[in-house]
Amino acid sequence: MEKSNMQKLMDKILSGDRRAFAQGISVIEDRRKGWQELLNEAYKNMNDHALIIGITGPGGAGKSTLTDKIITEYRKLGKKVGVIAVDPSSPFSGGAVLGDRVRMGAHNTDANVFIRSLGSRGCIGGISEGTKRVLYLFKTFDFDVILVESLGVGQDETEITNFVDVTLVALVPGFGDSIQMAKAGIQEIGDIFIVNKSDHPDAELFTNQLKFSFGDMPIEERPPIINTVASEGKGLDELMEAIAGVVPKEYARREEKTKRRIHIEIESEILEKIMDTARDVIGQKAKLVFDSENKITPYDVAAEIIAGISFQEK
Amino acid sequence: MEKSNMQKLMDKILSGDRRAFAQGISVIEDRRKGWQELLNEAYKNMNDHALIIGITGPGGAGKSTLTDKIITEYRKLGKKVGVIAVDPSSPFSGGAVLGDRVRMGAHNTDANVFIRSLGSRGCIGGISEGTKRVLYLFKTFDFDVILVESLGVGQDETEITNFVDVTLVALVPGFGDSIQMAKAGIQEIGDIFIVNKSDHPDAELFTNQLKFSFGDMPIEERPPIINTVASEGKGLDELMEAIAGVVPKEYARREEKTKRRIHIEIESEILEKIMDTARDVIGQKAKLVFDSENKITPYDVAAEIIAGISFQEK
Repeated sequence: MEKSNMQKLMDKILSGDRRAFAQGISVIEDRRKGWQELLNEAYKNMNDHALIIGITGPGGAGKSTLTDKIITEYRKLGKKVGVIAVDPSSPFSGGAVLGDRVRMGAHNTDANVFIRSLGSRGCIGGISEGTKRVLYLFKTFDFDVILVESLGVGQDETEITNFVDVTLVALVPGFGDSIQMAKAGIQEIGDIFIVNKSDHPDAELFTNQLKFSFGDMPIEERPPIINTVASEGKGLDELMEAIAGVVPKEYARREEKTKRRIHIEIESEILEKIMDTARDVIGQKAKLVFDSENKITPYDVAAEIIAGISFQEK
Repeated sequence: MEKSNMQKLMDKILSGDRRAFAQGISVIEDRRKGWQELLNEAYKNMNDHALIIGITGPGGAGKSTLTDKIITEYRKLGKKVGVIAVDPSSPFSGGAVLGDRVRMGAHNTDANVFIRSLGSRGCIGGISEGTKRVLYLFKTFDFDVILVESLGVGQDETEITNFVDVTLVALVPGFGDSIQMAKAGIQEIGDIFIVNKSDHPDAELFTNQLKFSFGDMPIEERPPIINTVASEGKGLDELMEAIAGVVPKEYARREEKTKRRIHIEIESEILEKIMDTARDVIGQKAKLVFDSENKITPYDVAAEIIAGISFQEK
């Protein structure tokens, strides 16, 4: 049987063809014709070779600069580095805010670095559907390290932990207090915490507050806290050591994370498809609720729609 | 036919019984026995009397203090005020971070103010399922004003706009720059922007950047920007005037928002129920994917499950 276009594209990507790889990312990100087949191929052909590092944290924490410096460090070690940078985009415009990306220009001419910015549209749980899917393609391309930079927005970020090996949480002093950090709900997701811009006058206070916020955890489980001034390259050695230090522990969790990830993937795939199917009937029923002036409720009609759905084993 | 316990509880709530109201909130929030019936009753019995104001913005922006002062302003006008404050809670612990709530103690003895803190667990899209549901109950209790304070975390906050009449976005100077605000994706959701802690040295610069970020919008559509120092009560008169100023325009959008809200409600109700039903089969299929070592993909099994679902009109 002749191979389909997507299978041919996948073959090229597996052979290390950088252009085919870039094209494949676009196919999946923009949901071009055949994207689902390519995604399925990517899933089947991915390998577990790369160390996947997520970098998250609030906007303004210097995540892009950190990513830039981490690339440099891994390049010094001769590693092939892939970067997925999620541009924060407005939910209304669908557009990406440029700017940060520009700084990474130095790596653009390096054949062993591949950087791709994605929009964050369709973002569910801090890591967009697009990012997850593109990550699978990255895992077919023989990188040693894959960096995923995402905009950390508190509790929605928890899902990312199932898609990466090591999660770095970048914070800055002078941005709220320790209660603020607790609010952000990020203590639990960070394998390593970075206090960036640590030349800030409040850096020491902030670092202490952060340490204090881990007070309830057993000492051996507390994540390392690394002080950096990423723009000046300060603290990068310590950060790289800390990453190397947590890798064995995180690799041991790969199986558990894979299992959780599969669950998430099946669920979100089903939800997406069902919503596509049910859109019309929901539209009709929504009109019914509105016209009834609250005498019929959304819960009534949802129950009715659900009652009409049957799960059949094929 | 004798009334059910939940119908009796609803009757008490409708008669203005504060204790029954508090009990009803707990029933819905904690999903106690009969909660769905009570929710359905609340939906049928809610009225459109109250002005619903959402207060959102990043942690540390002083939302609780603002809420406190806005309550005082409405009390001066003789209005009956209900407050739903969503405590940020860790996604893992499910617990609430206390502290902010304490400040609102002054209103606790005022019979015309009712404040309720909710956990933000099960939070989808910035406003939790629990908050939405409890809001319907608040709409049966004859408040003149309902304040909904939620933790703003960027683009996830957009959903809240469909549940409230007026959205206030509270920001603070010295927290990133204008790109930072664009990243937060909150320009589109605010009906009024509050630059709180406007005695901060960077306040003027920050306000100008914020103004500049609205540069693409027609002048008449740009939201008011109000400078406040909420802790000292500064700018509150201006804020109250701004709220009164946008109310007519926002009331005109109630129908459109109601329609969108009904859609959201039916959808999330269906998704929740389907996930309950499908949990077992997803669990089995997830195991299949894992055991196959990627030869079977999540997309394969999702398609299989979907193929087994049929929508039937009753």
